Amino acid sequence: MIRLRRESKPVFLKNKNDESDAKGIWIGGDHPVVVQSMTTTDTADYEKTLTQVYELAMEGCEVVRCTVQDARDAAGLLHIVKRSPVPIVADIHFDHRMALAAIQAGVAKLRLNPGNIRDYAKTKEVVELAIQRGTPIRIGVNMGSLAPDLEKTMGHTPEAMVESAMRHVQILEDLGHTDIIISLKAHDVLTTVFAYRLMDKRLAERETPYALHLGITEAGMLRDGTIKSSLGLGLLLFEGIGDTLRVSLAADPVEEIPVCWGILKALGLREKGFEITACPSCGRAEIDVLELGRSVEAIAKEYTAPVKVAVMGCVVNGPGESKMADVGVAGGKGKGAIYRKGELVGTFPEERLLGALRLEIEKVIAEQYPDYKHEIQLT
Amino acid sequence: MIRLRRESKPVFLKNKNDESDAKGIWIGGDHPVVVQSMTTTDTADYEKTLTQVYELAMEGCEVVRCTVQDARDAAGLLHIVKRSPVPIVADIHFDHRMALAAIQAGVAKLRLNPGNIRDYAKTKEVVELAIQRGTPIRIGVNMGSLAPDLEKTMGHTPEAMVESAMRHVQILEDLGHTDIIISLKAHDVLTTVFAYRLMDKRLAERETPYALHLGITEAGMLRDGTIKSSLGLGLLLFEGIGDTLRVSLAADPVEEIPVCWGILKALGLREKGFEITACPSCGRAEIDVLELGRSVEAIAKEYTAPVKVAVMGCVVNGPGESKMADVGVAGGKGKGAIYRKGELVGTFPEERLLGALRLEIEKVIAEQYPDYKHEIQLT
Repeated sequence: MIRLRRESKPVFLKNKNDESDAKGIWIGGDHPVVVQSMTTTDTADYEKTLTQVYELAMEGCEVVRCTVQDARDAAGLLHIVKRSPVPIVADIHFDHRMALAAIQAGVAKLRLNPGNIRDYAKTKEVVELAIQRGTPIRIGVNMGSLAPDLEKTMGHTPEAMVESAMRHVQILEDLGHTDIIISLKAHDVLTTVFAYRLMDKRLAERETPYALHLGITEAGMLRDGTIKSSLGLGLLLFEGIGDTLRVSLAADPVEEIPVCWGILKALGLREKGFEITACPSCGRAEIDVLELGRSVEAIAKEYTAPVKVAVMGCVVNGPGESKMADVGVAGGKGKGAIYRKGELVGTFPEERLLGALRLEIEKVIAEQYPDYKHEIQLT
Repeated sequence: MIRLRRESKPVFLKNKNDESDAKGIWIGGDHPVVVQSMTTTDTADYEKTLTQVYELAMEGCEVVRCTVQDARDAAGLLHIVKRSPVPIVADIHFDHRMALAAIQAGVAKLRLNPGNIRDYAKTKEVVELAIQRGTPIRIGVNMGSLAPDLEKTMGHTPEAMVESAMRHVQILEDLGHTDIIISLKAHDVLTTVFAYRLMDKRLAERETPYALHLGITEAGMLRDGTIKSSLGLGLLLFEGIGDTLRVSLAADPVEEIPVCWGILKALGLREKGFEITACPSCGRAEIDVLELGRSVEAIAKEYTAPVKVAVMGCVVNGPGESKMADVGVAGGKGKGAIYRKGELVGTFPEERLLGALRLEIEKVIAEQYPDYKHEIQLT
């Protein structure tokens, strides 16, 4: 149903100290769209950072980026890369020594705009080491940090972002590095969408279909950031553009992960955990839908199988909506009905409703996902 | 930048007891996309319902729907319509007596699928009274309540929803009622998008470009519902489809309004209040961005002028990002910098930062929005 995905050159991410490839992940090609985030801790404080990496991974984050600003951060990175359950990306601002240290620490990827290093000999040193160690590089252009000359001549436009990124691409290509991923982030949804569309065209024309990392930068606080990212990144993914995504929220980064997954699930691109549909409640509701929904969410946290559950406040839409769900629950006065694919399983008093619902969910999992294990595994 | 809006036949909504048209609103045509919601209270309890109507209106909801299930609700509706600050829509399930009572109560619109009344004489009576009183009708097809024969032959498809809606349209047209709005809600994002696209085509072909009311039904709890609605409704609005929207959340309906506005603002379709961009914070942050962002949000609540504020955790992206904002604030160690369109206004110790920010915001408003009044007005 969704537009065919654009062709892209896959890149493999793996912390270099991992002997096997089991903890590595592909970005691009026909591989699933990858969920990313970034730590907000001081990278030098590696224990604290690792705790956040684990929290992110537990929530479903598949690649984690850490900023590397100084030698203390670089030292911390060594520990993080060794103990991380997921590939680690080093975010380098412009200091080539940090880039070298990060590659040597064995990171799975660098986020680096090579043009920012300014000194060609230093750039060459970094890129050659990256080639030698097989370290892919993401070129990440943000609207807020365009090259001054491009900003002056082209303004804050999608064209300026693409042009800016292509300069960095050219530097890597000239040095023989083509394990490239590109991002073009603006805080404005429309600008971001047009920039990625333009980049898709540009890369297709020059026959270098590098993978694209999607993001809206500085998207905002929890609600606005969720809206802008869902809209902008969702639109691009709907058009087949995007191999990995990061939702930027001014919030605990762990909050970013369910948003990423929500976007991917809504577009049918990936599956993870319950899909809960819940009616918005109205004057017809004979049960507290919000309360019931929260209880179902609490149950959902215990499973990773993709069970569809419909939570309905009354029997008007209840049976209908639950036909499209694996399990449905509709409220009545002091009691509730449970449905299985729209067929009534039974009516239960309110105090027994959740127990009956859980039983039905367990049955669905046993029948539809016989290989499913009731535990959360990280690796 | 956005795709040209589809042509649509505008419909005027107004509570019939209002002598002037001042509190009325147009849906469709070239009029701004309208924000709607629905009360969750018992309509018969009109004081409680009116309180919710006012809460919704204060948040920016422009049309409010109330369910009318029985004579008690219909009696409550009379009071609600008279005292509501915004147009009221009566949601009728199938009882033609409730439809008649709602029209007589002077509602601004009915949500009614005329085919559900089943008795032709009764349907005729309702539609003729609606024509006489100038009451528009929204046909609202939900995937969960398709006509059984269509469900059987066509399944849960966009085509079945469009077909179902067109049957109701035909009934209204045959009786001479063409003040029609149509909605096609599924809980699945892709199905919803394809259904509206199909309806757009179908209406264009038969040259009856009725206005479209967008919604994802039973979208889910707060976060998932926000993601699915932003993605699905945003996609359609981006394509120029949609004249009014309702975000359905299993949450307090007041929560639905900022999501509607967030979608419209992100697409540049409407303006309302501050646009706050905030960096997601990272190991570079020298200030608590989340805390600072929350303070800016608190300030934002006091104004309705569309001021752009950038909240940044450090000086790396701070100056750049704030060029695109009216006012920018970037954190440093124990102090912060304030920017005006990217130009440094000054550096302030942390305890004076918010005061300085507010002062700068007031200046922007005074200069850019001289007609702006620092008070929230409902009508």
